Amino acid sequence: MMQGPLEGIKVLDLSRVLAGPFCCMLLGDMGAEVVKVERTERGDDVRIVGPWVGGESLYFLMMNRNKLGVTLNFRHPEGPSLLKSLVRQADVLVENFRAGTMEKMGCGYEELKKVNPRLIMASISGFGQDGPYKDYTCYDMIAQAMSGHMEMTGDPEGPPMTTGSFLIDYSTALLALVGIMGALRAREHTGLGQRVDVALFDTAASFLVTAIPEYLLFGAKTTRRGNRDRYCAPANLFRAKDGRWVFIAAATDALFPRLLKVMGREEVLQDPRFATNEARMQHIEEGEALLEAWVRPQTADEVVAKVRGAGLPCAKVATIEEVVTDPQLKHRGMLVEMDHPAAGRVPMHGLNIHFSETPGKIRRPPPVLGQHNDEVYGRWLNLDASGVARLKAEGVI
Amino acid sequence: MMQGPLEGIKVLDLSRVLAGPFCCMLLGDMGAEVVKVERTERGDDVRIVGPWVGGESLYFLMMNRNKLGVTLNFRHPEGPSLLKSLVRQADVLVENFRAGTMEKMGCGYEELKKVNPRLIMASISGFGQDGPYKDYTCYDMIAQAMSGHMEMTGDPEGPPMTTGSFLIDYSTALLALVGIMGALRAREHTGLGQRVDVALFDTAASFLVTAIPEYLLFGAKTTRRGNRDRYCAPANLFRAKDGRWVFIAAATDALFPRLLKVMGREEVLQDPRFATNEARMQHIEEGEALLEAWVRPQTADEVVAKVRGAGLPCAKVATIEEVVTDPQLKHRGMLVEMDHPAAGRVPMHGLNIHFSETPGKIRRPPPVLGQHNDEVYGRWLNLDASGVARLKAEGVI
Repeated sequence: MMQGPLEGIKVLDLSRVLAGPFCCMLLGDMGAEVVKVERTERGDDVRIVGPWVGGESLYFLMMNRNKLGVTLNFRHPEGPSLLKSLVRQADVLVENFRAGTMEKMGCGYEELKKVNPRLIMASISGFGQDGPYKDYTCYDMIAQAMSGHMEMTGDPEGPPMTTGSFLIDYSTALLALVGIMGALRAREHTGLGQRVDVALFDTAASFLVTAIPEYLLFGAKTTRRGNRDRYCAPANLFRAKDGRWVFIAAATDALFPRLLKVMGREEVLQDPRFATNEARMQHIEEGEALLEAWVRPQTADEVVAKVRGAGLPCAKVATIEEVVTDPQLKHRGMLVEMDHPAAGRVPMHGLNIHFSETPGKIRRPPPVLGQHNDEVYGRWLNLDASGVARLKAEGVI
Repeated sequence: MMQGPLEGIKVLDLSRVLAGPFCCMLLGDMGAEVVKVERTERGDDVRIVGPWVGGESLYFLMMNRNKLGVTLNFRHPEGPSLLKSLVRQADVLVENFRAGTMEKMGCGYEELKKVNPRLIMASISGFGQDGPYKDYTCYDMIAQAMSGHMEMTGDPEGPPMTTGSFLIDYSTALLALVGIMGALRAREHTGLGQRVDVALFDTAASFLVTAIPEYLLFGAKTTRRGNRDRYCAPANLFRAKDGRWVFIAAATDALFPRLLKVMGREEVLQDPRFATNEARMQHIEEGEALLEAWVRPQTADEVVAKVRGAGLPCAKVATIEEVVTDPQLKHRGMLVEMDHPAAGRVPMHGLNIHFSETPGKIRRPPPVLGQHNDEVYGRWLNLDASGVARLKAEGVI
């Protein structure tokens, strides 16, 4: 049985911080041999970001399981040629430096493909490898700000809002992964690798979907709507007696009558203000007021039991405390533990794709800096102990 | 040259609404032949959701380019066997019915793999195919509520907040795509297909990352923080003279001094409250007050020009009006137009992965209901015109 669907694929992970490491972690989850190549001395930028567990950055621990770790001094005169030696053995290289950095090192795609024409090089950046913004610095939040996602998120009366986690980083990591796997398939046919170029800003723009044509065709400026659905009603958040919030969606003409039945208010359906989705959208405040009045005297759990019991989409807004003990997430293997030599048992997210025949696995914890220098430089480059020792002594690794 | 990296792959898209159709659209963007199989008469649920362009649902148009369209009456006695005939010709089937629906139709994975052992069946659902919640109804917002993402998004003083677009739906679509492409690779080795099972709730949980161990190791309840970064300061939104919002991040010990230089306030670095990130996190209000006072008398564009000019991450929160004319997005091909026979020229998002050698392409607009019945049933099943006519006459398609 395969060790995951990517068994046999060798990956060089030159990336730092978030989108690149997350992409490469998923490559590792699926069975690829991923070697994280970090600069000497400091390594990945997030190694110095707390909080800490047994001296290790929690942030780093969450992004780098299923990788071997080596160091490489990119600024040493021998650095680029050592990298090229690794590239010769690799199927995939992932980097998320600023556009042009690899080229400045003499390791741009055009150079690397001379060394290994089968190489797939995935570049993850803020704005892409070309265009007027290519040199701008970018983070997830910058992409959310510039793409309209912040404009669309939050309370209509309040400021634009970013998401509570780095969803554009994670999504861009997934698009890079799709690109890499597409390029692997293309290579089966052509025998050649290629460059895959994804960008946080592109990702965010591609998720605007209806907002683009709504403006260009109708002049409609999609903006903040709080927790209300944009197209259907009722679908919003309501506060229960115990102060907890409940999301209720009964926004189709099939579901709304079922909600009214749960509420014991079936006569409302006779009211032309609520008879169709179009009418409900026009009288959205009045319709939500009915739900508010019904929810308010009950606890959130009572409301959820009734509405969900009728087969309607409904949920209490969970706290992190509740999420980390959620029985469904436990059942699905989404809450797991990993053993780390320094940090001990570390709880973390599980594998987010379930393959029936070639499941992935957490095979190893994140490396400490340079942990696998001997193994990887030995095995990949056929260097003996004295060869690796020389690289260390001369500061190349 | 290949028509995208998935040329030659045949996909049956049985999915409706959002995550499934988005996944299959990307399969089509990458060159797969995607046949959208819709129920007779009404088709995909979103065909009846406005707004409308030339009688077509804009929502549907945004999710279904690069697909052929056929109808199939799943409740007709001949429906399941007709579906199985299509499955025999397919590489991939994507569905997002509620867990168990395919089995009730007699078309569960165990049945379908008897018909075609090479089939890859990807199931996208709210909570997955098993576990205590498998029968609950789910949407993007339900997953955001139950996974902690709403708890973590929004103003600390305000209610939990959902994202302004369906980011968990899109991400789950991407994970399904990764799963499908992983299974295609595994099939190269094993000769057999498999089931891929992804869920909105799993996806959202896997993006919590540090929030899980922070609670389980330290008891820290990650919650709403507005637009502040959780680990570094300063990184927040500031309001300019013209009422526009600017995001500024200068939250590392390398970047912060550069921001102070731009502000002409280099002496602040001598203040022990701001000398290190740890100190800045402890005095976050005071540090942000310095930035607020500097931003407030300037326009957003002035602030961005100065801060970005110094190479620091900085952005104005863009409106949709600005996004749809953004020069970088235009340059990157992220804002394109598609010709549709009924809707005319429809502006939409472009292809969000750039392949250097096997680029994808918008080859066809979304189908009208049953548009390609003759072509697909003819070509895939080798039916002649009278065979297809019989299926139509008997209400099978």
